[in-house]
Amino acid sequence: MKTLRDIGEDALIDRLIALVPLPSAAAEGPGDDCAVVDPGPHSPTLLLLKTDALAGGVHFLLDTDPEAVGWKSVARVVSDFAAMGGKPERFLITVALPVETEIRWVEQLYQGIGRCLRAFGAVLAGGETSRVPQGSAPVISVAATGSVARENLVLRSTGRPGDVLCVTGTLGGSLRGKHLDFTPRTREAEWLASRDSLTAMMDLSDGLAKDLPRLAAASGCGFRLDTAALPLTTGCATTDALNDGEDFELLIAVRPESVETLLTEWPAAFPDLPLTVIGALLPAGEGDHLTGGWDHFGGT
Amino acid sequence: MKTLRDIGEDALIDRLIALVPLPSAAAEGPGDDCAVVDPGPHSPTLLLLKTDALAGGVHFLLDTDPEAVGWKSVARVVSDFAAMGGKPERFLITVALPVETEIRWVEQLYQGIGRCLRAFGAVLAGGETSRVPQGSAPVISVAATGSVARENLVLRSTGRPGDVLCVTGTLGGSLRGKHLDFTPRTREAEWLASRDSLTAMMDLSDGLAKDLPRLAAASGCGFRLDTAALPLTTGCATTDALNDGEDFELLIAVRPESVETLLTEWPAAFPDLPLTVIGALLPAGEGDHLTGGWDHFGGT
Repeated sequence: MKTLRDIGEDALIDRLIALVPLPSAAAEGPGDDCAVVDPGPHSPTLLLLKTDALAGGVHFLLDTDPEAVGWKSVARVVSDFAAMGGKPERFLITVALPVETEIRWVEQLYQGIGRCLRAFGAVLAGGETSRVPQGSAPVISVAATGSVARENLVLRSTGRPGDVLCVTGTLGGSLRGKHLDFTPRTREAEWLASRDSLTAMMDLSDGLAKDLPRLAAASGCGFRLDTAALPLTTGCATTDALNDGEDFELLIAVRPESVETLLTEWPAAFPDLPLTVIGALLPAGEGDHLTGGWDHFGGT
Repeated sequence: MKTLRDIGEDALIDRLIALVPLPSAAAEGPGDDCAVVDPGPHSPTLLLLKTDALAGGVHFLLDTDPEAVGWKSVARVVSDFAAMGGKPERFLITVALPVETEIRWVEQLYQGIGRCLRAFGAVLAGGETSRVPQGSAPVISVAATGSVARENLVLRSTGRPGDVLCVTGTLGGSLRGKHLDFTPRTREAEWLASRDSLTAMMDLSDGLAKDLPRLAAASGCGFRLDTAALPLTTGCATTDALNDGEDFELLIAVRPESVETLLTEWPAAFPDLPLTVIGALLPAGEGDHLTGGWDHFGGT
């Protein structure tokens, strides 16, 4: 019998979505950082939907500060809304816990959840506490709504051959603590999304080696990656920058004629955060191949 | 150290929501079957949000037909939308699974998910597949959006002393299979919600002994329950009807002057499903006390 160990996450998802009814409008379907819903022509904003889960022993260690876990569980979703040019609004948070969990642990978890919700102007609109059998890993499942002004929506599927690829910040080193204490790039994403020069955007959650091929494939493009140009977190090598995952930086595609202007304007807006050219989109079938990054079923 | 075993689910939730920012409008907060969002005066419908989770070994056995588990995971949420007078629209489904899970099990799960989504006109808008450590229980976390016409919204908090309490269908016996193979009362709820005689409604998921006190408390009322009048599932005793949980029938409060008309019209609309008077709402502090039902942390 084949198990999840024998199949990658992307291949599994392809099989599963063939079994269920999907939204009729293409932009609404699974595949981007968030699902996009158009409430109708009367609405100046689009509705964004996102879900994300953290499991003990996989995404965090059981002795990790629970407040940091709570922050991370919300911040990951905030980062996904940012990647569409949007902002978070209402959260539904489910915690599935063994009954031997200390109440204090759950309260500290929710303190971190509350701190992140406040930091980004979002609220808890609902949720559920559920039980898992003794000895099972705790699971924190976060679902949320967000919104984006129609003119600011940026997809990952709208890049074009010739567009220049850039990333914010530095890559690699998530396991040294960054994955628990990162700031979603909402301000930067809003600034970028309001510019006409941007053609595609996503956040880097599973590592550039996994996520860049996803953006290129969604856009029907190949890509060229200049690995020597990668902005490395201090103490990290290129392989860390490609594979560690959980950078939560933004990967963007920019019209080639606008790159110079963008790189000139950026430091005035964000003096403390680099924006680095790392490659370009190419016609489909051309360019580099990348393997690696974080696969949700690839571990043991 | 106190653990979740020492505290009921409702008490835990009270502690947790004190730690997080909540929506400003009262009707939007946690506490009803779904969260309600008003998109603004331009919108003829209100947005409903709901999340619900199933854990292996708690809500279903690991040798249960996975297609039935998939159906149930969606149908529970459909039932919550029905309880507000609304219907489901877009689902986000997260499955957290050990890597030793068979692919066939996951595909059958999604066949059940897909069958229920189709049956109620909903779609899968997104989701996530995640890993839990080997030996951990699988968790299926479902979040969804729904909608309800403004004039059809029914809360559980708007019952008044003197209102008559009724339930649809029969109660008890969920563990003999009904909990895996139930039909959410969407048609019945839509019919009821369009009548002016209804003052409050909820669905019975945790057993009447748990849920009736919740509706009464949310409405600021006491209640009187005529246990001899409870409509029992064949082979069930009163204690089963009170405590088994997972009936997924509707509990409603009706203006006293309208009950006779409602009971006369009901059989013409739903000849195969009983609607039974079981008691009444009373002024706060008066009437019966009930304990029992399903507590999510009460088991072992």
